[in-house]
Amino acid sequence: MINFQTSPEQYKHWQLTIDGAVARLSMDVQEDATLADGYKLKLNSYDLGVDIELADAIQRLRFEHPEVRAVVVTSLKPRIFCAGANIYMLGTSTHAFKVNFCKFTNETRCAIEDDSRHSGRRYIAALNGTASGGGYELAIACDEIYLVDDGNSAVSLPEVPLLGVLPGTGGLTRLVDKRKVRRDRADVFSTLAEGLKGKRAKDWGLIDDSFPTSRFQEAVDARVAQVVNLRTSDNTQTGITNETAQVNNLRYNGIRLNPLEFESTDDTREYRYVTGKLNREKRYADLTMRGPEADLPATPDEIQKLGDAYWPLRAYRELDDMLLHLRVNEPEIGLVCLRTEGDIDNVLAVDQTLAANSDHWLIREIVLHMARVLRRLDLTAKSFFAIIEPGSCFAGNLLELALASDRTYMLNNPEVPQTSVCLSELNAGALPMSNGLIRLQSRFLADPDNVDEVLAHEGSFDTEAADAAGLVTFAPDDLDWEDEIRLAIEERTSLSPDALTGMEASLRFAGPETMDTKIYGRLTAWQNWIFQRPNAVGPQGALTNYGKPTQAHFDYKRT
Amino acid sequence: MINFQTSPEQYKHWQLTIDGAVARLSMDVQEDATLADGYKLKLNSYDLGVDIELADAIQRLRFEHPEVRAVVVTSLKPRIFCAGANIYMLGTSTHAFKVNFCKFTNETRCAIEDDSRHSGRRYIAALNGTASGGGYELAIACDEIYLVDDGNSAVSLPEVPLLGVLPGTGGLTRLVDKRKVRRDRADVFSTLAEGLKGKRAKDWGLIDDSFPTSRFQEAVDARVAQVVNLRTSDNTQTGITNETAQVNNLRYNGIRLNPLEFESTDDTREYRYVTGKLNREKRYADLTMRGPEADLPATPDEIQKLGDAYWPLRAYRELDDMLLHLRVNEPEIGLVCLRTEGDIDNVLAVDQTLAANSDHWLIREIVLHMARVLRRLDLTAKSFFAIIEPGSCFAGNLLELALASDRTYMLNNPEVPQTSVCLSELNAGALPMSNGLIRLQSRFLADPDNVDEVLAHEGSFDTEAADAAGLVTFAPDDLDWEDEIRLAIEERTSLSPDALTGMEASLRFAGPETMDTKIYGRLTAWQNWIFQRPNAVGPQGALTNYGKPTQAHFDYKRT
Repeated sequence: MINFQTSPEQYKHWQLTIDGAVARLSMDVQEDATLADGYKLKLNSYDLGVDIELADAIQRLRFEHPEVRAVVVTSLKPRIFCAGANIYMLGTSTHAFKVNFCKFTNETRCAIEDDSRHSGRRYIAALNGTASGGGYELAIACDEIYLVDDGNSAVSLPEVPLLGVLPGTGGLTRLVDKRKVRRDRADVFSTLAEGLKGKRAKDWGLIDDSFPTSRFQEAVDARVAQVVNLRTSDNTQTGITNETAQVNNLRYNGIRLNPLEFESTDDTREYRYVTGKLNREKRYADLTMRGPEADLPATPDEIQKLGDAYWPLRAYRELDDMLLHLRVNEPEIGLVCLRTEGDIDNVLAVDQTLAANSDHWLIREIVLHMARVLRRLDLTAKSFFAIIEPGSCFAGNLLELALASDRTYMLNNPEVPQTSVCLSELNAGALPMSNGLIRLQSRFLADPDNVDEVLAHEGSFDTEAADAAGLVTFAPDDLDWEDEIRLAIEERTSLSPDALTGMEASLRFAGPETMDTKIYGRLTAWQNWIFQRPNAVGPQGALTNYGKPTQAHFDYKRT
Repeated sequence: MINFQTSPEQYKHWQLTIDGAVARLSMDVQEDATLADGYKLKLNSYDLGVDIELADAIQRLRFEHPEVRAVVVTSLKPRIFCAGANIYMLGTSTHAFKVNFCKFTNETRCAIEDDSRHSGRRYIAALNGTASGGGYELAIACDEIYLVDDGNSAVSLPEVPLLGVLPGTGGLTRLVDKRKVRRDRADVFSTLAEGLKGKRAKDWGLIDDSFPTSRFQEAVDARVAQVVNLRTSDNTQTGITNETAQVNNLRYNGIRLNPLEFESTDDTREYRYVTGKLNREKRYADLTMRGPEADLPATPDEIQKLGDAYWPLRAYRELDDMLLHLRVNEPEIGLVCLRTEGDIDNVLAVDQTLAANSDHWLIREIVLHMARVLRRLDLTAKSFFAIIEPGSCFAGNLLELALASDRTYMLNNPEVPQTSVCLSELNAGALPMSNGLIRLQSRFLADPDNVDEVLAHEGSFDTEAADAAGLVTFAPDDLDWEDEIRLAIEERTSLSPDALTGMEASLRFAGPETMDTKIYGRLTAWQNWIFQRPNAVGPQGALTNYGKPTQAHFDYKRT
């Protein structure tokens, strides 16, 4: 079973050091510390275990080290920054594992960009050696890229020429959409196994600059100092208001992210606020989130003292861990029934606190984290049904669970008046999807006025009002309720899991596309296709034969 | 060998009748007139042959019947509009054929929308019976959908529940992005084999209205009359200027699209302006377009007299036919080297005529056709290299061939001054890509000012100027030229054809996404993946077992 929890003391592959406003995240992959047998992580190549540590480090920077303004991503190995995803690991993995691995590494890269965009930390890739494949994809997730000019070190995306697959961690999309490399040059670069160095790499926009070995450290340090000074003296450059920045600069003490405790049996997993119950033979899971307690603190100082025990942070960290567990460790679970338990007023009180203090660094990080977890849910290749019953608390931030679901069932029983849903200020913009829209906008594309009407509604919606407002899919009465839910679950879990994955990926992201949705929708779907093709994974495929004395033989039919 | 040319006299599956401003396009598929053996086209189901006729009819409406303002798409079979793509045909086709089939049918649906958007013809789907799968996808490509209410007829997308694949002709994307059906309702509809009828179909936005059998014809006729009257009396509704509309209304005589003549051998295909030469053992083709003659007519009246012999129409129809031929009949050809021959001034003269008369119906249709053919090239799953040599005429509309290519090679030999490229007004907006950008914008995303600078440049660019302006990828001198081209071809055709397809689909469409690019990029890539999966096409897959006494058995792992 793969465990997604870790912490710096446990890191095997990364060093995280903090020096004032500068963090240094150094890759030093231990060859033998692999997640599975059958491969060695040579040349700073990585498997999922390495990326779990990276994701943890980025998360911790945000909560534990808010004073950090610049993050230098580099390597402790001589002459190599990172060789990308380990090819032998890919070659020996199942299709489903490859796909999940790529998705997680993509989410980690997007988390770097989320930190840069919303929290103003600047990520500087200091390539002290060659960055190839996923190594270069990690670099282009950063804001700036500097490459050592030692006559040898290059950046490259050698997947197409060497492996017959795509750079699978956003590389192609970031090349043309983020760095805006001219498409014909991107074509040349992506078919050139040895990549590009120095001046040409800079001219083509693949790196920001290169420096000779003797000056490399000094030049990177100078740039880092410049970034840190800019960020402390002139915060308009970061897109963060001066007020927020002042709060930031006063705040040198983060909060500690402690391990998430849970009890588990073969078919249950019980965290403090999240319970997962697997119905393996029926291929679905019940996932219940419990709402917050009453009278939670309402000021940033009190919340900071409460730290990671504060409901919005703890509950969403638990949800995140549960989603990752279901994705990777429970592939046969095709449907997740989302439920909530608790008091709507308590959820609304928390949302009010979060909305009122959104300029405080910790509150901002907590809300941005909730948004990322909800996007992880949007991007999970399982069906989601929200089940709204008496005693549930689908309000404000928890209503997003229902809005993120493929369908919503709400009990219509007027004699049980407590079945209701409610909106809060957090539904109005703080928790966007990958496509840049809030979930209400994605839902009401046909009638954008509905978004404002629903948000302006006073108080909660009972079932009929929620149905009339378009917030639920079905509102069966209590006579039909159990049968309808049971049948819906049975029908859903009987369908082709592949067709459902493709259908959900198409229906969930109506409206605009962004770089993120292009990475998850377009690039990932093509990569999934290629990962199935005999030219990559068949006995004569390029991925299968990489590093062997045998050679790949292609079926050259173009599809 | 599949032939993409046809004409109404040859149609086996469609009737095209014209009555004043109203065209009626009626589907009446002949079961036995299939393109391959092993299946019957029952219930107005279709194979590629049926769609080739539909594409031809839409094209002919635009050129031969400019007087038509409304197109009624309906069926001559009782109680069935169209059952979609034939399942047995899909089940017995190769993966590559399925993918190419879906792409062509998507292009046909997009051509309907292109006609509606740019030429103001209104497409009305009159569903006199059930429209399922591709049948409903044809309907949602139309502007309005009316369904007979006979207690039985429904609209449906049963691919996911019945076949374990996606609706592959834009259905899912058009559902949520064009008709803006709420995503949870789209989820329910797309998993409901029997589909939806009458009131619910209308409430959910799947159709525009339904009428009982007794009133159906009358109601559709009334709506058609309304559309035609609106379009002749108030053309502001169509987005077409009054001036254009007047020209339209005066113009009841279209031009005839005659068969394209060509001579072919085993490895050549020679049209009047297009030559294809296959190098099969090296898996690439040379495709040469010859520019126009001097002194072509410059007024719409003369051009109308010239008809389909006019260079921009004939040359691009030939290019279109050649591209389709290469796609479907020459799957092992992985690379197309695009060349041009002719006089740059003659190309520029044609472009000037087209630009100066863009409000004339025929000129508009000619330019819109050129734009569609170039988009067909963008969407072709083969690599394109443009080869610019002395005697070529990559100017104006033909420069788009180079801008559409994955790479451009231009000979740098100052002693041969005639190697040059040149822009015209047609590069500035008339020939957009599927992503809504012109090719210069897609190329210069990093520096949008370059677009204006290049367009403002006086006269032609020699090789060094073109290179400096970012218009070419490589500019080898005459000593290196032959070796470099030969090596580039050898390298390209040695790479995994699948990886190249995914890479090109990612790099060609930088920048914004539209409904069209979502259909080709996101939905198509997912469908390609699913078309490879054992759950669809394996011995126990749903597509394989459809209509057999055996049942599908899925591997339920979610990916």
